[in-house]
Order: sequence, then C-alpha cells, then structure tokens
Amino acid sequence: MKKHIYIYSPSSAVRDKAGFKRGIKRLESQGHEVEVDTDALARHQRFAGDDDTRLAAIHRAAASGADIALISRGGYGLSRILPGINYKAVSKAIAGGTRFVGLSDFTAFQMAVMAKTGAVTWAGPALGEDFGAEEPDDIMEACFDDLITGQGEGTGWQLPKSAIDSIATSQGKSMAGAGFSIKDAVLWGGNLAMLSSLVGTPYLPAVKGGILFIEDVAEHPYRVERMLTQLLHAGVLAQQKAIVFGQFTNYSLVPHDKGFKLASVISWLQGKVKARVLTGLPFGHVPTKVLLPVGLKTTLVVEGRDAFLLWGHLDGEHGHHDHPSHDDGHHHHAH
Amino acid sequence: MKKHIYIYSPSSAVRDKAGFKRGIKRLESQGHEVEVDTDALARHQRFAGDDDTRLAAIHRAAASGADIALISRGGYGLSRILPGINYKAVSKAIAGGTRFVGLSDFTAFQMAVMAKTGAVTWAGPALGEDFGAEEPDDIMEACFDDLITGQGEGTGWQLPKSAIDSIATSQGKSMAGAGFSIKDAVLWGGNLAMLSSLVGTPYLPAVKGGILFIEDVAEHPYRVERMLTQLLHAGVLAQQKAIVFGQFTNYSLVPHDKGFKLASVISWLQGKVKARVLTGLPFGHVPTKVLLPVGLKTTLVVEGRDAFLLWGHLDGEHGHHDHPSHDDGHHHHAH
Repeated sequence: MKKHIYIYSPSSAVRDKAGFKRGIKRLESQGHEVEVDTDALARHQRFAGDDDTRLAAIHRAAASGADIALISRGGYGLSRILPGINYKAVSKAIAGGTRFVGLSDFTAFQMAVMAKTGAVTWAGPALGEDFGAEEPDDIMEACFDDLITGQGEGTGWQLPKSAIDSIATSQGKSMAGAGFSIKDAVLWGGNLAMLSSLVGTPYLPAVKGGILFIEDVAEHPYRVERMLTQLLHAGVLAQQKAIVFGQFTNYSLVPHDKGFKLASVISWLQGKVKARVLTGLPFGHVPTKVLLPVGLKTTLVVEGRDAFLLWGHLDGEHGHHDHPSHDDGHHHHAH
Repeated sequence: MKKHIYIYSPSSAVRDKAGFKRGIKRLESQGHEVEVDTDALARHQRFAGDDDTRLAAIHRAAASGADIALISRGGYGLSRILPGINYKAVSKAIAGGTRFVGLSDFTAFQMAVMAKTGAVTWAGPALGEDFGAEEPDDIMEACFDDLITGQGEGTGWQLPKSAIDSIATSQGKSMAGAGFSIKDAVLWGGNLAMLSSLVGTPYLPAVKGGILFIEDVAEHPYRVERMLTQLLHAGVLAQQKAIVFGQFTNYSLVPHDKGFKLASVISWLQGKVKARVLTGLPFGHVPTKVLLPVGLKTTLVVEGRDAFLLWGHLDGEHGHHDHPSHDDGHHHHAH
C-alpha cells in the first residue's frame, strides 16, 4: 500500500548520511512516496538547524498531509523548542491522518503533544538507524507495515524469566498460572531521560491509571534510579497501573557498583509502587523495536511469560476503536 | 578554635580510605575534635550502607550536637532516602548550632531541608576529596575556618572576561563601570543534576527572587542545557534575580558539537531569562571552593569584574544578621 512518508529533522543533525539515503531507498523500494524536508540535512552546531529551522521543519511536517511523519534521527534538540511548537497545527495534522513516528529525543515532542492536545503519536523507528540499517530489523518493519496498512491491533513479547520470578516474589503470587490484565489504560512513555526532564513542566501529560513504558541508552543504573525517583517523588508512578521496562542499553557497570545493577533498580522500584512492573518490552535503542501508540487506551494482558499490549483495530486514534482482543488480533510477538 | 566535627556518609561508599584518614588527621591537626560515625565506612553495593543505615547516620549526625556535620563524600544515594529523613530533627540540630556542610549528591539533602524547614545548610567541601587531598586548597580551608570561627561575612570572585562581555552584550550595558547589586535575596542551589532531579517533587524549595548557583561534573553542555531547560520550563528560573554558574568540569566535547559548548548554553540562557547571569563562581567539583550558605538571604554585588556574595556577620543563620557590607566584610576573594 503506497503511502506518503515525510522525513524531517527536529533534533540533532544527521551525521550518517549514507544511512539516511539507505533509509529513504528502503522505504521507496517498498513503494512509498518519500518526501524529504528541505532542512532535513541542515546543521547548526550539533543541531539539525537552529531553533527556528527545526520548528519550521516540524510545522512543515504537520502541514505536509503525509500519512507518516518520520524523524530522521533523535539526539538532542526538542526540549528547548517545545514552547515554540504550534500544537494546534500538530493536533490538526494528526486528526487529518498524519501519524508522527519516532523515539529518543522525540519523546519530548510526544509528551508535549499529548499534554497539550491529547493527540496520539507513535513510539517507533527513526529513518537512519532503523530503515537505514544495512539489514533493517524484521519485526521493526513488520510493525511499521501494520501501522501503514492499519492492520496493527497490538504487540506482544515474552517476559524474561528473572522478571517473572521477581514479579511473583514481590507481588506475592505463585509463578505457575500467573496472569492478569489491565483494561483500557492509557499507554504512554518513551525515553526515561526525556520523561524525567519534563517533570514539573507543562509538557508532561498528567496520566491517571496508565501504562508507562520506559527505555534508555547510555545511562548507568544509578541514573536510571534517580530518574525513576523523580517520577516517584513527583507522584507520577503512583498514578500508573503498570510500568513496563523496555531496553536499557549501552551503559557500563563499574567495579564499585559491587552488585548494584539494573535488576537492583527494578527490584527497588517494585517495593515502592503498587503498579505491575514488567520488563523485556522490545523497544528502545535496539534494532528490534515494536511500534507503540502513545496516548492511546490499551489493554495489557499477561499470561505466564507472554505479555500483550492490545489496542484493537484502529479506525483513527481518537478513542473510538474496537475492543481489543488478543485471541485474534494482528500483532507481532517479539522474543 | 576547637570545634566538634561529625563525619558521616549519607551517599556513596567511601572508596579512598587513605584520603578519608588524611582528612580526619588534617582536621585534628587543626585542633578539632573529629567524631566519626559508626557507619561512615559502611558499604552496601555502591552505597555507604543500605537505606536504613544511611538514614540512621544522618539522624546520628543531627543528634551529635556537633558544630559541623561534614559528609565524607558525595556520589549517589540521597535521592531515594529523602522521604525517610526526619526533617524536624535536622532543623532542630541546625537551630542548636550544627552546620551541615557538603556538596554534589548532598544538594538533594540541602534542598529537601530547605523545602521542608527553611533551615540553612552550607554548600562546601567534603572530607575526603577536600581535607583529605595531599595538599588541601588554601581558599577552601580559609572559608571553612571562617565558618568555624564565625568570621565569614561573604565571598568574592573575579568574573571571567568573556562573561562580562556577554553580560554587557545581552543586557545592553556598557562594560566600563558596569555594576549592580541585588539585596537580600535568598541564595540557594548546588549541583545542577540534583536540582533538576528534584523539580516537581516536594523536595525542591519554591524560592522567589533568589540567587541560584549551579555547578556540575561530567555533564556534557547539552545535558546542562536540558537540565536548565527543565528549570526554565518549570518556571523556576523566571523567579530568580540572578543565576550564578560555578564550575562545570570533567566533560568532553565531541567533534559533532561543531562549536556547541558551555558558553553556547550560557548565551542561550541569557536570552531566556530576565535574571542576571554570572559565571566563574569558585564552587563545584574543584579544589578551590568557597563555602556558601544555602537558604540564607545574601546580597550580590558586582563592580566591574569583581563579584561579591555577602551575608554579613552571622549570629546564627535564622534571618537576623547584620546588614552585609562588602567594604569591611571578611571574605575570601578567589581568582
């Protein structure tokens, strides 16, 4: 199904131009019309153009009428331009059918759009690192196709065994036959550093009874804990029904950690919140990433080691969608 | 003047035990009675004991009746135990004459004490890295002596030339004869990562018309900017009369910064706030550090390239102190 995909750069300057070009070719080879923003390769210092340039790029993406507005890459740069975004224009574009897709620094945009308008965006791939990879990941592409074709009804993954054990232990449940579901809870989240950097600002949505997913890269577990502590002490975590850890990658433990590691942080967190704490979500700074609707009501189902996030067949992401069912839904199960 | 100094470890485990011992000897050689908390050298993972151990150490420091409660070191560990601190006990200790001194991770404690009780603590040295250095810094020691003897009435430093230029430029003033003063403004701040990690929580004081000082270590300028953006978007910076940059050290610029550096961040900030933005304060993760009263009303005076923070002769830090005068005050001028 041929779609119109708009590529733009709201954050850091594109450095891997070969990857950028490969990504465009990959999408074109799948039959899509790829429109590249005039400043997609702009550079000002470490940014993809100065603040006004990047704001204009966002607004051109919103005005493009594209089916998908896909970031070239993440990096850093959205935080400081959040006050300059025309949220009404973005929300109007989303209502008109444009799906904004991205991750990492893009979490700031997604949170701000959700806080200001309630509109749904998508946590998913970036052009360069994902579609521009020498061999793009199958599951990443399949999830993207689902979005494009409107087939996606959810996603699933296998919980790591150690996490199941700790869930069972901390929540006083026997492992055998452990299962639960959380219905119609707003899915939200993204990059943890971006989420914590928005606490106390007008750009973090106030989500009650939600399912919060998080990921990060190159952050030592003590920093992950400090960021979670901010969300905890700000009262954000107490409002969630589930906290889902995606992939935390590319950090190094040091000898004086003496056993302190990410699992220590997860275990500590489980003692601090009533929310279900799950791990292993295939999302983050890794090739195999699912595509998640940010701001949409979803249902979380856990059966033994199988976890599902379900949002049913979408006929627009504005709240009215089929009731999710994981028995016959079309979703990609990543292991 | 012999004083009672209590050493305790509220954050990371002490690793440099030689420095720890040297620090104690240094203070003892100056005639002080040094009392070492029973768990000052405890270890649990990367922490100086588990959460209960560190909380108990803080409460023993508060109950010690010491003149100075000095941290062994910073690191990480205070964030997650903030809800367990008995702030009444700490405030009572401060009213009784105990001065809590420290920096870095300790900023979390200082902010929480200020938010919960309004009591004054001191941003200054740690035992190991400062008094335990092979050659402790003269100015650090002189400022500490001032606190001990009650002689301190302020501190001064020379503004970097480039900062003067940028102040002059951004604030439309001629450099020659530039000068101003900000009277009776609450001085507060410390480590920027800790400050930003407290935004939106009950542990960040709401300071209006204040003088905010900041420092950090091993944080790239883009991260410094992101942290400042959080304080900006949360409305904290708009409430301040001055923002004073201390030392930002031990980070590495990368080729793709392409000219983006700490000065870019400072320049950007100057365009976003009405507050005076000053730089060069000798405080941070550096040997030469002044001692600053956190939560106390101070007067900031700038005359040409000379900057002064003045709090007058202290007869207790509870608001009633002599009116500051930089003409005859006893303060250490660091270049």
